Amino acid sequence: MKLTQYVSKTATKSVSEFEYDAPSMKTAVPGPNDIQLCLSPGLQNVGAVHFFCNYEESRGNYLVDVDGNRMLDVYTQISSIPIGYNHPALMKVMTNPNNVSTFVNRPALGILPPENFPDKLIESLLSIAPSGMRRVQTMACGSCSNENAFKTMFIWYRNKERGYANPSEQEVDTCMINQSPGCPDLSILSFMGAFHGRTLGCLATTHSKAIHKLDIPSFDWPIAPFPKLQYPLEEFVRENAQEEARCLEEVEDLIVKWRQKGKPVAGIVIEPIQAEGGDNHASPDFFSKLRNIARKHGCAFHVDEVQTGGGTTGKFWGHEHWGLDDPADVVSFSKKLLTGGYYHRDELKPDKPYRIFNTWMGDPSKNLFLSEVLNVIRRENLLEVVTRSGKALLQGLYTLQTQYPHILSRARGQGTFCAIDACNDATRDSIMIKARNKGLFMGSCGEKTIRFRPALVFKEYHVHQLLNILNDVLAEHK
Amino acid sequence: MKLTQYVSKTATKSVSEFEYDAPSMKTAVPGPNDIQLCLSPGLQNVGAVHFFCNYEESRGNYLVDVDGNRMLDVYTQISSIPIGYNHPALMKVMTNPNNVSTFVNRPALGILPPENFPDKLIESLLSIAPSGMRRVQTMACGSCSNENAFKTMFIWYRNKERGYANPSEQEVDTCMINQSPGCPDLSILSFMGAFHGRTLGCLATTHSKAIHKLDIPSFDWPIAPFPKLQYPLEEFVRENAQEEARCLEEVEDLIVKWRQKGKPVAGIVIEPIQAEGGDNHASPDFFSKLRNIARKHGCAFHVDEVQTGGGTTGKFWGHEHWGLDDPADVVSFSKKLLTGGYYHRDELKPDKPYRIFNTWMGDPSKNLFLSEVLNVIRRENLLEVVTRSGKALLQGLYTLQTQYPHILSRARGQGTFCAIDACNDATRDSIMIKARNKGLFMGSCGEKTIRFRPALVFKEYHVHQLLNILNDVLAEHK
Repeated sequence: MKLTQYVSKTATKSVSEFEYDAPSMKTAVPGPNDIQLCLSPGLQNVGAVHFFCNYEESRGNYLVDVDGNRMLDVYTQISSIPIGYNHPALMKVMTNPNNVSTFVNRPALGILPPENFPDKLIESLLSIAPSGMRRVQTMACGSCSNENAFKTMFIWYRNKERGYANPSEQEVDTCMINQSPGCPDLSILSFMGAFHGRTLGCLATTHSKAIHKLDIPSFDWPIAPFPKLQYPLEEFVRENAQEEARCLEEVEDLIVKWRQKGKPVAGIVIEPIQAEGGDNHASPDFFSKLRNIARKHGCAFHVDEVQTGGGTTGKFWGHEHWGLDDPADVVSFSKKLLTGGYYHRDELKPDKPYRIFNTWMGDPSKNLFLSEVLNVIRRENLLEVVTRSGKALLQGLYTLQTQYPHILSRARGQGTFCAIDACNDATRDSIMIKARNKGLFMGSCGEKTIRFRPALVFKEYHVHQLLNILNDVLAEHK
Repeated sequence: MKLTQYVSKTATKSVSEFEYDAPSMKTAVPGPNDIQLCLSPGLQNVGAVHFFCNYEESRGNYLVDVDGNRMLDVYTQISSIPIGYNHPALMKVMTNPNNVSTFVNRPALGILPPENFPDKLIESLLSIAPSGMRRVQTMACGSCSNENAFKTMFIWYRNKERGYANPSEQEVDTCMINQSPGCPDLSILSFMGAFHGRTLGCLATTHSKAIHKLDIPSFDWPIAPFPKLQYPLEEFVRENAQEEARCLEEVEDLIVKWRQKGKPVAGIVIEPIQAEGGDNHASPDFFSKLRNIARKHGCAFHVDEVQTGGGTTGKFWGHEHWGLDDPADVVSFSKKLLTGGYYHRDELKPDKPYRIFNTWMGDPSKNLFLSEVLNVIRRENLLEVVTRSGKALLQGLYTLQTQYPHILSRARGQGTFCAIDACNDATRDSIMIKARNKGLFMGSCGEKTIRFRPALVFKEYHVHQLLNILNDVLAEHK
């Protein structure tokens, strides 16, 4: 049952041995098979489903749906597929008989780690540890990672406060019933527009969309403004510097105010680029000064790299672009790293076992995949690929916004972590649907932003496919 | 390097085709290879590590460590291994080429589910749905499951409160800055001794040990006493009934008090057997009355089956022992189910998409394993095996506590989910270490309790191995 047929006319042929060479559309999306599957009694949250996928047939940058539509995917499962679909290196992990036991017997890592676990950590997560860090704790997902990173900062802060003495009897007793001083009134400072997850601790630092937060009890924690930069940056140098200074001043005010309130700020958490909140950027100078404010006030500085980490900005960690020797106390990750977790400085190591703990504490089978991903990134120089493709993508977005100034504005990005705003949300959504029906699958964020989150194997000819389809859609747009 | 050699003299031979027939010890545990590995720079939280494991060589009920010691494992990775190590049925999942793509391409399940996902849910999680429930939401781990179950109850409660109308502008605005009414002062009622996880929301309902909670900010939520039953139960019928009545009265008082405080109880969360808190049981009558109190006061009733679920009590869900038609509004799970998640009644379905959401929302590769686990449970009648082995185990524990009344007391259990108390924590710990060195690996909980959490393939001859080793240890104990 073919509804429409679209093959990108302008696609450059791929030489990759395992990938398709272009999008290929057989129906509108969602197609008839999608609509049928949405009626399945097995499905829970149909409301958010875009379409059903045929992951077996998906390859590299191309995601295939159940109607046989093959789309260039620049959303990559909410930015969580590092090297494309069904990469041969990852398939090999599955067929290696030495790996079977790791998949079949998931250990309680905190108490009974497998023999090879320390070595696997060294060859995977510790080989990419951010500057100043040699400790990593794996977790199951991004929210768990941030929750436990927060706990690590609270424990560190209270240990400082009590001079590294043992907790008092009163602290031990009151903590059991959720009361101070055992459960102290500490806070985490976050930023408007931030997204750090949806469990109750994380959610108290998330301020991107009301739908995430409505009806859920929260903590009285301070929320600072995140700089709202004006674009193009080179035209608003002075205004943007003032805006960043205003936000930093507010951060200091809030730290003082919350200390006076009796809810001291134990940590500051921030994304190198606010993603879910609308791809909001700030300058390295802003982050450098924020880091200094954290140090000055004795707060831990937590960089949330769940979306920015893993190479997508052209460096492995987004915060490497700041050029600081001492950028963070805690760095959390998930998504493209395939396992959740966080790095931290030695000082933040909890003083006792079982303070940071849960049954699984990660999943060694994900570390196996991560090791292979890192091999591929190194072997294929994917950070350079990202930098090159990112430049081409951003240049193309600049051209499009010049060509369609009534529709597009504020093209911005780092590596392939790029975004552009539409004039309003309805236009943004309409562009995205039309592009999808022509074989380009993109994500949205913020109020009216399109976000580009391709895999690290997104090459320049994929950029051209993307830009051609987007150009076709915009040309047809009234 | 052999330090000691111990082979259980009394072990009955196993006829199982893939399992070992008895423990076999070459060194004390931890052995020299363990101690070496603990020095690895790759390791984070050495403090909690019991020993390093050779999972490749582990089989069925026997866990092998890096020094070649083979132990009868009745702790099973904190109760999370359903059918033993390296079960052939699970190995086959790995070698089936149709499954490779599911492992290699982890989807964002909430927006881009794989074609077979609804069918896989029907054949796995929905085939074992608790009474009255046909909706299930998968999650990554137990804490995430409970956090999202709490959110589901909060959303349901507030929707009731506003008569299912759209939220006000004020609610939408205030929720973005963590303030009421958008982030309402709702609470979850939990019980002393409970364990529901360690992320900030879950931790506010966890009251088992101070080390879990110290220094972490919490919510002012009500905490009711959990019945402290006296054993043997048949001798304290009247006292125990009074104790349960006292706790239920306190529950109602707290619900009223917290409503008056302006922090109404949206949900009550409880474990069918408090595990981490010390294997505390209550009668079906207690749970039945608690369920009625929840309904009377308009609170959702959330049964946390993370440790009790999956067959270990002799029924698939621990709460099935209560014999109620209408036992729960929400049932959460993880561990032996291999994936986290929760079931809920239709009424608790969130009114809009993206209210309950995260990047991965579970992991379909875990559902593949779960399907096989369920096949094995059915094929091998493992619930009957658990019931039979559980009876033998509990009978054996009764005998031991009669034989060693100065050391052991309060033997209790349901299925193989059994426990016994030592006279104090030092004795408990000493018994556990001695037993481990003779090839029996057990877990602890509460203040002085040994907990037994064998896999579902734990047969009667394994029970005899366990009892023989325990008897040897107790006989040697001063």
